[in-house]
Amino acid sequence: MAGNTFGSVFRVTTWGESHGTAVGATIDGCPPGLPLTPQDIQAELDRRRPGKGGPAASPRKEPDAVEILSGLFEGKTTGTPIALAIFNKDAHSKSYDNLKDIFRPGHGDISYLAKYGLRDHRGGGRASARETAGRVAAGAVAKKLLSLHGITVRAYTVALGEISTGKRNLAEINDNPLFCPDNEAAVKMITHIEAVRKEGDTLGGIVEILATGCPPGLGEPVFEKLDAALAGALMSIGAVKGVEIGAGFSAAEMRGSENNDVILPEGFASNNSGGILAGISNGDAIVARVAVKPIPSISREQQTINLAHEPVTVSIGGRHDISAIPRIIPVCEAMVALTLADHLLRQKAIA
Amino acid sequence: MAGNTFGSVFRVTTWGESHGTAVGATIDGCPPGLPLTPQDIQAELDRRRPGKGGPAASPRKEPDAVEILSGLFEGKTTGTPIALAIFNKDAHSKSYDNLKDIFRPGHGDISYLAKYGLRDHRGGGRASARETAGRVAAGAVAKKLLSLHGITVRAYTVALGEISTGKRNLAEINDNPLFCPDNEAAVKMITHIEAVRKEGDTLGGIVEILATGCPPGLGEPVFEKLDAALAGALMSIGAVKGVEIGAGFSAAEMRGSENNDVILPEGFASNNSGGILAGISNGDAIVARVAVKPIPSISREQQTINLAHEPVTVSIGGRHDISAIPRIIPVCEAMVALTLADHLLRQKAIA
Amino acid sequence: MAGNTFGSVFRVTTWGESHGTAVGATIDGCPPGLPLTPQDIQAELDRRRPGKGGPAASPRKEPDAVEILSGLFEGKTTGTPIALAIFNKDAHSKSYDNLKDIFRPGHGDISYLAKYGLRDHRGGGRASARETAGRVAAGAVAKKLLSLHGITVRAYTVALGEISTGKRNLAEINDNPLFCPDNEAAVKMITHIEAVRKEGDTLGGIVEILATGCPPGLGEPVFEKLDAALAGALMSIGAVKGVEIGAGFSAAEMRGSENNDVILPEGFASNNSGGILAGISNGDAIVARVAVKPIPSISREQQTINLAHEPVTVSIGGRHDISAIPRIIPVCEAMVALTLADHLLRQKAIA
Amino acid sequence: MAGNTFGSVFRVTTWGESHGTAVGATIDGCPPGLPLTPQDIQAELDRRRPGKGGPAASPRKEPDAVEILSGLFEGKTTGTPIALAIFNKDAHSKSYDNLKDIFRPGHGDISYLAKYGLRDHRGGGRASARETAGRVAAGAVAKKLLSLHGITVRAYTVALGEISTGKRNLAEINDNPLFCPDNEAAVKMITHIEAVRKEGDTLGGIVEILATGCPPGLGEPVFEKLDAALAGALMSIGAVKGVEIGAGFSAAEMRGSENNDVILPEGFASNNSGGILAGISNGDAIVARVAVKPIPSISREQQTINLAHEPVTVSIGGRHDISAIPRIIPVCEAMVALTLADHLLRQKAIA
Repeated sequence: MAGNTFGSVFRVTTWGESHGTAVGATIDGCPPGLPLTPQDIQAELDRRRPGKGGPAASPRKEPDAVEILSGLFEGKTTGTPIALAIFNKDAHSKSYDNLKDIFRPGHGDISYLAKYGLRDHRGGGRASARETAGRVAAGAVAKKLLSLHGITVRAYTVALGEISTGKRNLAEINDNPLFCPDNEAAVKMITHIEAVRKEGDTLGGIVEILATGCPPGLGEPVFEKLDAALAGALMSIGAVKGVEIGAGFSAAEMRGSENNDVILPEGFASNNSGGILAGISNGDAIVARVAVKPIPSISREQQTINLAHEPVTVSIGGRHDISAIPRIIPVCEAMVALTLADHLLRQKAIA
Repeated sequence: MAGNTFGSVFRVTTWGESHGTAVGATIDGCPPGLPLTPQDIQAELDRRRPGKGGPAASPRKEPDAVEILSGLFEGKTTGTPIALAIFNKDAHSKSYDNLKDIFRPGHGDISYLAKYGLRDHRGGGRASARETAGRVAAGAVAKKLLSLHGITVRAYTVALGEISTGKRNLAEINDNPLFCPDNEAAVKMITHIEAVRKEGDTLGGIVEILATGCPPGLGEPVFEKLDAALAGALMSIGAVKGVEIGAGFSAAEMRGSENNDVILPEGFASNNSGGILAGISNGDAIVARVAVKPIPSISREQQTINLAHEPVTVSIGGRHDISAIPRIIPVCEAMVALTLADHLLRQKAIA
Repeated sequence: MAGNTFGSVFRVTTWGESHGTAVGATIDGCPPGLPLTPQDIQAELDRRRPGKGGPAASPRKEPDAVEILSGLFEGKTTGTPIALAIFNKDAHSKSYDNLKDIFRPGHGDISYLAKYGLRDHRGGGRASARETAGRVAAGAVAKKLLSLHGITVRAYTVALGEISTGKRNLAEINDNPLFCPDNEAAVKMITHIEAVRKEGDTLGGIVEILATGCPPGLGEPVFEKLDAALAGALMSIGAVKGVEIGAGFSAAEMRGSENNDVILPEGFASNNSGGILAGISNGDAIVARVAVKPIPSISREQQTINLAHEPVTVSIGGRHDISAIPRIIPVCEAMVALTLADHLLRQKAIA
Repeated sequence: MAGNTFGSVFRVTTWGESHGTAVGATIDGCPPGLPLTPQDIQAELDRRRPGKGGPAASPRKEPDAVEILSGLFEGKTTGTPIALAIFNKDAHSKSYDNLKDIFRPGHGDISYLAKYGLRDHRGGGRASARETAGRVAAGAVAKKLLSLHGITVRAYTVALGEISTGKRNLAEINDNPLFCPDNEAAVKMITHIEAVRKEGDTLGGIVEILATGCPPGLGEPVFEKLDAALAGALMSIGAVKGVEIGAGFSAAEMRGSENNDVILPEGFASNNSGGILAGISNGDAIVARVAVKPIPSISREQQTINLAHEPVTVSIGGRHDISAIPRIIPVCEAMVALTLADHLLRQKAIA
């Protein structure tokens, strides 16, 4: 109820602060007998770790080495909780001392203080994007489970700031550091990042997530529809301000005759539904997109207030990304994978 | 876990099918001592009931009279479950007989059958929008609770098909049947509806929800952020395909320096955050928008398949709305009210 | 979280007060395709209804006719919520007027007022045993589900006051109004009840619950062990003050060599474990016993206090049972059936 | 849902196996601002650790040093998850190799295999009493929270095998290694343990738990009554086979006039209710007792079967306790403290 647990059957609890001892996750409800190695998890963590992630990334160096503390026996899951820990190595708490008494614009400083009456100001504490390491670690286990059922989840950049991709060639995703399915657009995006970095500013963008191989029948009626679960899961990622499924906001301008996906004996003729009808998967590919806001930590001077509610200005140096893209990509994949793994197991309970 | 329950502390379970005996909701966790009358609930139900809702609405006539079966004593809630029932009066099950063996495009027929192995084909069964009567009834109780804390929730139409509002004058909302904060736009929308109706087609649109008076500190970190909870809540409404908070998708094109809301001693200078920072309310107005897809039941002929997976065509007569707008508006308000009521109580547990 | 919901997958929410409009239950998570009729439920309700239950019972006459308001289609469950309502017919609220200002000893009057700040004094409100009608109705559906898996649940009286059964001949259970597996003991118990009634006093006793056909592997490690779930479920029945599994309290005096159940190729040589090892069913019969306290409403004069905390005396007339036995028996069965149905479905999710 | 999480608001997830890397717990929902040091937790762990616990204890040497990995800032809880880890140091996995292929009587070997299809046979894996270290660590935090509200929880031995305490002088609890409130009885118990050890056998007993200072109003109606929650919590401890509240099983033989606690202006005249009426605390001391079965690992030869279902005999050497008492005592306290902490916070949500 305090918000750090995700899922009903495949249930994950994450913990840890940016500048604490470690971050981690515990998975309760992973079926027994799943082959799992630390490398399965490490591979995903390596995609989101600081220092990786190409031109937009922070120079903070974290090896992000995962340790599996429980739940494995002879290379397989046992059905009991899988505890994962990632110890923090390169936390520079001192560099946050000057931010101790002010509220950074666009950050949770002011809302956390209102909620808890105190806050760990070092690097955003629990509100830091570092928290997502636990999600990605748990998501790697979910992906492993999904892979046994023929389900794959991929995310990729479809817009960075005002630059959109012209095409969606998934074969190109791993060709460029932005995980963009359009190498030409990726080149423009990289140039754009450098320009914006020089302005002391930051960028947002749009990420699309595609899940293929998902069987029909996943999702629960009414409040825990698959699209509702995905929307909650994706909106829970710090920088996300919007989520859409299938045609999404463009459906608002369509006629029913346009938006309805014609059903043919061989399958759906289109996929405006994003693979979900009445909240339940229909067997088609699941498609979602998220709007990612620009990183709020900018080196340009901003106006704000301090704890005494006096006006002050702030320029945030530190080691910050220019954009949450591309490091948010494995996080988006993790959240979709966790959602699908959970609903896959939920469906088994009633089928 | 089967999806018909919403909330953690202020917890609502809804039940009922379009053509069953009744629909309803049970609220568990409403604080004791809240003054409540059937009229409080009836007023909200009247806003969404069939036959109301202006030019876009179905001619099905349902009085939607609520009965409070438990949880009240001498005009006040007792802290025990509040059971609400709305008996169905005007269900014409026969008119669905011809749809028994086919999958309607854009509907959950195909996904429900895949999930459950059987389905109640009459009017969509549990997947019918009639299900939302239970949400609205429960939402009315949430609104009553919120009103005691100075919180109000209002929703209104900001786009219908390709027609958008030019302004947001909330004083005009109740002047027109579309709950549009722009009377001139409303006139155009009504004309548009009639044209589309003649084409045998349907319309989507965009609804904005505004909650004022919400204290800072609501929402939980990580997975149950207030924006994540709102996104899940709103996406759980049948016709919704997208949700955005504050600047939403437009934030993807902003720079950090633009998107960050400057903090002044007197409050935030702008509200791109939509009243939520790091998933926790910041005291500013909470703003969300949802993309509503066009009603999938159209009288124009569509191609689909039957249970034997043979191609067939279908033209859906029946008594259907042209657009989920405006009847979806009290449903949007209900879901936001339920989310805020739940988080308001959750915050009390730790404060 | 407010306590009126039971179960994780097969999830039941009950509602209703002794002197309100109705009592009922909503089941969310019942698998689709289960054949179900109102008679299946009515048969169980008839076993606990006021006026039934033999010599120990209250003269309140309630037909306790169940109505299934949703979740059924063509005689089968659909997988969507099953709403059950039982309207109250014979509530005599006036007869409680004299109890409005006092705290009845042994009742929840004082604790409910402390909790909620107000209370529905009529017949105990939500704390009334009438609340168990909803449990029994939902339990009947659980029993139906279990029966398809070859699991049966029976409860019977093994002690009433100081009179214990000499034998456990389950064939005799339905021969006597106390559901006692020993007809001779039953005769003594009935005589005892009449004597105690004349004294203006009431009686407790012990009920044993036996579930056969339960497969091994049900229950979850650590906090949701099958015995823990059963203990919580049974202790949640109003009059229950103790629960034991298998050898129970007598195990405290055994040696390990005595208490361990020897395992033979053909099965366990004894059943001190009560069918549960390390919290997980082992395939043997599940055996539990509950201690039932005497009904606190007695016609003998008792000392207590009023709302002003002044000493007063009270003699409770009304229409009360002399013992919760035997009407508690179907309630015990219902709670065990609900627990097993839930864990049966939970196990499917991971198997 | 997979059973490793306890509580609704003060929510604890434990993890870890007897012979894995570590055991631990994550607390989600602890209020912010609670002063907490590793010593607060270590003191409780020291009471249950192997090698401690007097004459009945195993010689396994585990320092059981707790590490707080998150959730603390400047000596206070922050409101975010508190992750606790205790690394295993003295696991002798090899000594379990001979038990790999057999089912130990009285252990979960056979039920775990049925549940999961595989098992970690080393020291019982997740079913080991070592799992309770996580409970005790989390319980220490709950105790700290309760202490701020004037609530204390103590457990003590009231019977070991057939030897019962003659008195309950809580001042003597810490005078003897069995935490027995009767030093004379403790001397007899110690002699008894030595005799039983020589016989290659083991002992059970009864532990009483007393919580004082608990305000009235805790507990939720119907399924999550405080006594139901306590029963589930206590029965979830491995060796527990019975739970009773207040007069417990002896209430079954009382008359209503005896069992009812007379209410005086100054409070209750007796405490047969164990401090709980209608499932809600009444302000009196909360009293529960648990039946502890004898340790199933005995060195005497026992008959059982192997994985091939062939009869074999087994004599379990290893490093085992003679009785779960007294090491179970801090575990009982932890479970009661966790239950009360959770219900204390739950009550805040609605009050």
